Amino acid sequence: MTDPVEEGVGGPDLRLDELKELAEHDDLTAFVKRAHHVHPSDLADVLAALEEHIRARVIAELPVEIASSALAEMEAVEHPEELLLAVGPEYAAELVEELSTDDAADLVAELSAGEREAVLSEVTDRASVDKLLAYPEDSAGGLMTADVVKVREDASVAEAIEAIRSQSEDESQLYQVYAVDVHGHLRGIVPIAKLVISTPTRLVRELMEQPIVQVQPTQDQEQVARLMARYNVAAVPVVDEHGYLLGRITFDDVVDVVEAEMTEDILKFGGMEALDAPYLKVAFSRMVRKRAGWLAALFLGEMLTATAMAFFQDEIAKAVILALFVPLIISSGGNSGSQASTLVIRAMALGEVHLRDWWRVIRREFAAGIVLGGVLGAIGFLRITLWHTITGIYGAHYLLIAFTVFGSLIGVVTFGTMAGSLLPFILRRLGFDPASASAPFVATLVDVTGLIIYFTVASLILRGTLL
Amino acid sequence: MTDPVEEGVGGPDLRLDELKELAEHDDLTAFVKRAHHVHPSDLADVLAALEEHIRARVIAELPVEIASSALAEMEAVEHPEELLLAVGPEYAAELVEELSTDDAADLVAELSAGEREAVLSEVTDRASVDKLLAYPEDSAGGLMTADVVKVREDASVAEAIEAIRSQSEDESQLYQVYAVDVHGHLRGIVPIAKLVISTPTRLVRELMEQPIVQVQPTQDQEQVARLMARYNVAAVPVVDEHGYLLGRITFDDVVDVVEAEMTEDILKFGGMEALDAPYLKVAFSRMVRKRAGWLAALFLGEMLTATAMAFFQDEIAKAVILALFVPLIISSGGNSGSQASTLVIRAMALGEVHLRDWWRVIRREFAAGIVLGGVLGAIGFLRITLWHTITGIYGAHYLLIAFTVFGSLIGVVTFGTMAGSLLPFILRRLGFDPASASAPFVATLVDVTGLIIYFTVASLILRGTLL
Repeated sequence: MTDPVEEGVGGPDLRLDELKELAEHDDLTAFVKRAHHVHPSDLADVLAALEEHIRARVIAELPVEIASSALAEMEAVEHPEELLLAVGPEYAAELVEELSTDDAADLVAELSAGEREAVLSEVTDRASVDKLLAYPEDSAGGLMTADVVKVREDASVAEAIEAIRSQSEDESQLYQVYAVDVHGHLRGIVPIAKLVISTPTRLVRELMEQPIVQVQPTQDQEQVARLMARYNVAAVPVVDEHGYLLGRITFDDVVDVVEAEMTEDILKFGGMEALDAPYLKVAFSRMVRKRAGWLAALFLGEMLTATAMAFFQDEIAKAVILALFVPLIISSGGNSGSQASTLVIRAMALGEVHLRDWWRVIRREFAAGIVLGGVLGAIGFLRITLWHTITGIYGAHYLLIAFTVFGSLIGVVTFGTMAGSLLPFILRRLGFDPASASAPFVATLVDVTGLIIYFTVASLILRGTLL
Repeated sequence: MTDPVEEGVGGPDLRLDELKELAEHDDLTAFVKRAHHVHPSDLADVLAALEEHIRARVIAELPVEIASSALAEMEAVEHPEELLLAVGPEYAAELVEELSTDDAADLVAELSAGEREAVLSEVTDRASVDKLLAYPEDSAGGLMTADVVKVREDASVAEAIEAIRSQSEDESQLYQVYAVDVHGHLRGIVPIAKLVISTPTRLVRELMEQPIVQVQPTQDQEQVARLMARYNVAAVPVVDEHGYLLGRITFDDVVDVVEAEMTEDILKFGGMEALDAPYLKVAFSRMVRKRAGWLAALFLGEMLTATAMAFFQDEIAKAVILALFVPLIISSGGNSGSQASTLVIRAMALGEVHLRDWWRVIRREFAAGIVLGGVLGAIGFLRITLWHTITGIYGAHYLLIAFTVFGSLIGVVTFGTMAGSLLPFILRRLGFDPASASAPFVATLVDVTGLIIYFTVASLILRGTLL
């Protein structure tokens, strides 16, 4: 991934640093003046970088339109309840009023019932905000805004245009108008560009199209994101089970979801829980707690290797040389396993591989494991025989040692690829996220078996000589 | 990540299977009839699942509008040159004519000069396609389409609407109209919704807004994706260095880029190159080659562990018990290292951490390493002392062994987190992708040092007793 700021777009970043300094030096008049010329997304970054008490003071000074559009762009406002309390209920109500209903709901969600009442009692569109508060945050309902432009299907184009004029709050985010029947059920969609090129007397009914995608408020937000990406729609209507139009979700809401889910997946891959704030801002103790859990769990699993090694203690005592290759053998199993699990997890996420394909995948990975194990085994064999020719350190039975390593690598790598590819299927079948089959998890799983395979092969090949 | 098809939207999938069967049984009349009622994205999936020769036959039978919109949705058409040759130059020309210029350029890119000539000689908009072929595939130029609606800034709203009518090919993907001066330089952007609510006699100049984002054709596609996501724009104009309007990129083009880049990053994370086709479709030999390279490289690095172990062979011979904890110690270093690298890579990708922050990150990770190592060390200490109390297997000096493991874990985990967090900075500084600091890479890097730390701590603590 590249980073726009570090790759040439340095200018705005500099300006934002200045803005941050103005706030920190309490020069709020200058701050507000400059804030008028800054994009809400950039202003959101500046606000996010400020101390909480400074941020509240700055927001209270900003014109409500500017403050609200910056708040809408802040990924996750930390302690929104404290922010709202700091600016006072009247200004808080103005902010909430100005925000689209989904952002407003996010902002007041953390307030206590009494505080929320104080803020919302002033808000005109309170019913819509209340409705959104009822949906889980990670559902389509939690993502949608109730601010849609709707017209009756028997309206004319001229009436539809009039509806846009009166109902739309931000025309740069308006991509389609919804046609509804007399009860408010969604009947069709009119792309705004189609409206613009039609004669004013035509009826909406004649222009409207069947929605390619429509979602219900209880659907998972990730599923919504995937549908929108698949069908290339900039906005998707949200309807209840009877087809009543509740709101819409636009692609920019979904972009944030995809980014957050991607972060969660990637961190899961690295063997840890997602942090709930940027790396440099999250409290040290919180970060360590999030990491310690997984590390400790992996450590407990890995302890089985000490038990397995104790089991083969006599063999090691007889042939210390066997111990030399332990790290090499088990890491090869771990690496091939994490490669296989990564491949399968990603193919599942892209919909290239489904649960029902498990048998095809396993067969394929079995064959891949044999070949890859053979390659690594051959390299290992060469390394031992060549190294011995030069240094002589592996003793009289160096060829048997080389065969032991060769055979073990085939076994360990094959087991690794099969375990790594099977694990995501098992996790999904059990209802867990297949992405939890992270590299460290797979490696831990494979290590103990790797040791057993190695020492078993060794006792077969070396019996009567070294063992 | 969840999978829409497997989670309830089973219906369409079934219908698509039927469609696929029709094609495979050569019932093309029925196929074409049904294809009219299928979304291009779904039809693209069906086509992608067919054998190459069947696909070419099906496409040749489809009406050109349907074939072209499905082709536009196919992520990567395998061997597009063979497809175009199979349907013949006349039909190929019709297809290319129907596609937006970016998709057309992708399709003909693989043809030889002579074949391309045969196809393009029939195409009216050939100049635009030729121009796009000049840009690298992963640049803004390779992503953009030249099909934009542009109007002079001194035109009226009525004239702009007329321009949409005559210039636009697909109004569902039209989000904004571009205002240009007499030389074709971009002057401003008019959101389509703003046009629809304005009186016909107003001038475009009065309505137009400054573009929030504009890009140049040589910019990296990932940077374009990041800018569009940040500023929530559904479309972005592409201009040359003089500000001349060349084309536009829409959010749906960018969604595909983000998905492809994400796949590349995730697979890199798992320690392998990205495949160039879906997992179950890529040829076995090709997949194995892509995987064997990284595995062999890691294996060669991991061989150093055998050298390091050989160096401590005498210590192991004297105290075999030391060998028992080797897998546990080195895997803890690898796990903590891959956790740290994942965290830093992701924070870099999100722009939360920049190169200049390296010192802050390292200090933080040093502290985190000490704490995490202490936690694992304490667990290890308890495990050894408790286990010994029950079984007595660790001999008279079990307490010294437990202290050795405790001390080594603090050292190894601290080194692991520091190496894991520093590596992405080093890779980026050297111009590589920080995401290459995958879990297997970090683990391999940390294993050798882990062994050295372990045996050094052991020789300090156990000298005079076991060693």
